[in-house]
Amino acid sequence: MKVGFMGLGQMGREMAGRLLDAGHELTVYNRSRAAADSFRSRGAGVAQQPIEVLDAEVVITMLADDAAVDAVWVASGLAGTMPSSGVHLNMSSISLKMGKQLTILHQAGGSQYLAAPVFGRPYAAAQGQLDIVVAGPDAAIARCKPLFGVLGKQCFIVGADPPQANIVKIARNFLLGTIIESLGEAFALTRKSGVDAATFLNIITSTAMSAPAYKNYGRMIVEKAYEPTFGLKLGLKDVELALEAAGDTHVPMPMAGLLREQHIAAIACGYGDKDWAALGEYIAESAGLY
Amino acid sequence: MKVGFMGLGQMGREMAGRLLDAGHELTVYNRSRAAADSFRSRGAGVAQQPIEVLDAEVVITMLADDAAVDAVWVASGLAGTMPSSGVHLNMSSISLKMGKQLTILHQAGGSQYLAAPVFGRPYAAAQGQLDIVVAGPDAAIARCKPLFGVLGKQCFIVGADPPQANIVKIARNFLLGTIIESLGEAFALTRKSGVDAATFLNIITSTAMSAPAYKNYGRMIVEKAYEPTFGLKLGLKDVELALEAAGDTHVPMPMAGLLREQHIAAIACGYGDKDWAALGEYIAESAGLY
Repeated sequence: MKVGFMGLGQMGREMAGRLLDAGHELTVYNRSRAAADSFRSRGAGVAQQPIEVLDAEVVITMLADDAAVDAVWVASGLAGTMPSSGVHLNMSSISLKMGKQLTILHQAGGSQYLAAPVFGRPYAAAQGQLDIVVAGPDAAIARCKPLFGVLGKQCFIVGADPPQANIVKIARNFLLGTIIESLGEAFALTRKSGVDAATFLNIITSTAMSAPAYKNYGRMIVEKAYEPTFGLKLGLKDVELALEAAGDTHVPMPMAGLLREQHIAAIACGYGDKDWAALGEYIAESAGLY
Repeated sequence: MKVGFMGLGQMGREMAGRLLDAGHELTVYNRSRAAADSFRSRGAGVAQQPIEVLDAEVVITMLADDAAVDAVWVASGLAGTMPSSGVHLNMSSISLKMGKQLTILHQAGGSQYLAAPVFGRPYAAAQGQLDIVVAGPDAAIARCKPLFGVLGKQCFIVGADPPQANIVKIARNFLLGTIIESLGEAFALTRKSGVDAATFLNIITSTAMSAPAYKNYGRMIVEKAYEPTFGLKLGLKDVELALEAAGDTHVPMPMAGLLREQHIAAIACGYGDKDWAALGEYIAESAGLY
């Protein structure tokens, strides 16, 4: 399939690589050119201008955040020139507000739009093991199915309105934040009574909390493995996306509000450049544990 | 083995039944006599007075809470008459403070004491599928191993100091509370954007939150299945046990504090006699969803 690909960051470069390896005809664009050039030797076309990626059946955007999506795709006017024959498959994690804006923009321009944010860190992307959450019109989803098969191990369709996929991603990342905070508090409480943190983690992950989120974040806190693969400041950004969406749709989320305060305090205490799991270390510190 | 058993409530009666079926020689005591009498036909001895259960290798207590443990075992002076040859195996879920008090009482009296609270509802108890968390001296644990094998599917040893098992149970139930609250908020947020709750639940429990706690409480919230098997007021009690232990050991637990407020509000809004999962319904209501 002829595919345009914009955004060759940590995630995007792995995903674009898989699509190339699977035999798709790729034209890539990236704002910093070096990342794009490295794909030339692998057989990809390299666009000099963003508009060159539009000559494709599907254009994938995998940009860092709202600001990048706005700069590359909205403010630039690019979305407005999308031909109706193509599908814009936006896999970036963005706000509910930006999700709604893009939906309206594509509807107005008569072009097809899907939101398909993913769960998974770069190593999962490299192995085609992402979890993909998709929302949008059926015909566009059908068009993109072969691409989902290359990028993900599971694909969840949540509705016909694209922003529904964005809110699922936002709500799920809010849950990750609650897991890290609650684990931090539970570790601090048990450690104060002399219970070994690894023992406590083994008990909860061998019983009702036997899930990857508890196992992975719990292990990172126990091992104090805070080298960032997803930074605490990005965690705060995700909590703020939840609070913004909650404000826009009138949903009281006291736990999200508390998470925001805890993240800000953790950043104030010097954990901002650590992994999201370091929130647990801030909590230990606030309990006088080191 | 000659076993004394006190406390034939919803959990205790299933556990005592399994010990009988496994061939142990049981003497049971219960404050309301009807529950004890029903065990006579199954071959158990029925104690008229609590002190009669002390003539055993192991005396199990499975009482409702601190108040029941205090009434039957502490204020009654029973613990003080425990012979040094026997083991008091306390499987009740109690406060950290009561756990410490019992430890001191048995140490002073020269008798052996284990704390072994369990995870699991009555149907798990009936099938010997409880998760048992044990703390106390090795010799006493070794003595009780055959009983653990009949009652539980897993047995976790957390340390030599009995209250360590109590704090693990308290911290784990605090985590359950955070899961219900966070699920309630995430459901409310996604439902406001038109995402089906069952679809959202399937996504999170097929990915990073694939654990029984999310599956079970999530299903109950989605199905509005709030007939109590563990009531919301018991949930509040568990959150308060966490806060009390946190106060005693100097651990800031902002999430536990927030949970307390949410539980009180849910009870004020009429959810007190529903299952713990009904906290999710209170949250939906507070977001204007019914």
